[in-house]
Amino acid sequence: MSLHGQYDSQNIFAMILRGEAPAYKIYEDDDVLAFLDIFPQSRGHVLVIPKAAQARNILDVDPAVLGTMMAAVQRLTRVIVDELQPDGVQIAQFNGAPAGQTVFHIHVHIVPRWEGQAPGVHGQGKADPKELEALQARLVGRIRSGG
Amino acid sequence: MSLHGQYDSQNIFAMILRGEAPAYKIYEDDDVLAFLDIFPQSRGHVLVIPKAAQARNILDVDPAVLGTMMAAVQRLTRVIVDELQPDGVQIAQFNGAPAGQTVFHIHVHIVPRWEGQAPGVHGQGKADPKELEALQARLVGRIRSGG
Repeated sequence: MSLHGQYDSQNIFAMILRGEAPAYKIYEDDDVLAFLDIFPQSRGHVLVIPKAAQARNILDVDPAVLGTMMAAVQRLTRVIVDELQPDGVQIAQFNGAPAGQTVFHIHVHIVPRWEGQAPGVHGQGKADPKELEALQARLVGRIRSGG
Repeated sequence: MSLHGQYDSQNIFAMILRGEAPAYKIYEDDDVLAFLDIFPQSRGHVLVIPKAAQARNILDVDPAVLGTMMAAVQRLTRVIVDELQPDGVQIAQFNGAPAGQTVFHIHVHIVPRWEGQAPGVHGQGKADPKELEALQARLVGRIRSGG
C-alpha cells in the first residue's frame, strides 16, 4: 500500500471501532480509542486511534484529529509509565507499508522499553491472551483511579 | 538518563536554539525549529523541536507545545513526501535512553523510507555535508514555493 490512496473501511481498526472485531480496550472517549497490540513489541504496547477520521496516515488526517490523538497519546503514556514503570517509551507512527504500517487507519504506537531488553519485532509473535487481560485490567484500573 | 529528571540546558538542541551550535535548518517559526539529522537513518531524516519547552520528553512537555510540534511535523512530512517522494515515512519520538533517546530536549524524527532500503542505524554514520547542504536547499526551496 502506497502513501496515497483510498481509505478502506474494512481494515481491522475500522472493524474494531464498529464493534465488529474484538480488542483489549484500555481507554475510550468520543474522539479516540486505545487498546493493547496483540502482536506487541514489548509488554504494555498500546495503540491509539482516532474514531472519526477516515484517514490512512499523517498525510491525510485532519490536523485537529492529529492533535486530539497526540494529546491522548501523551495522557496514556503517563498512565503506562506510572503503572508499568518502564525505563523508556518509544512513540511511533508509521506511514505506508515500506515504513512498517500494516493497518491503514492512522494509529500511534506506545511501546514501553526496559533497560537491557530488546524490543520484539512487530507481528512476530502473538501475545498470550491471559497476559493481555491482566495488562488490560491494570491499565484500566490505573485510569479509573485517576491516572 | 531516566525518564524523570531535570532539563539540562547544555544539551545540543538547546545550543542550536540559542545559536551556539550549527544546524542544517530547513524550517523555523516562533514555536518550532526543524533541521536535518547529521546522523541520518535515511536520506531526508528531519528533526522537529519545540523552541519554548524546557522539556525532556513527552512526560514533561506542555500539551499545547506537543500539539504545535505535531502540527509542524505533519506539515513538514508533507513537504518531505512532495520533494523526496519516499514510499513511506516513519514518525518517531523517543523517551529515555533505553528507548533510543540521545538528546534530552523533546524532539520528533521524520524518517523517509524507500522500498527495499533498510534504514541505517541512528548514530552509526555521519552524513556527507555536501549531501546535507543539497537536501537542505531542496527542502527549503520546496517550503518557500508554498510546500
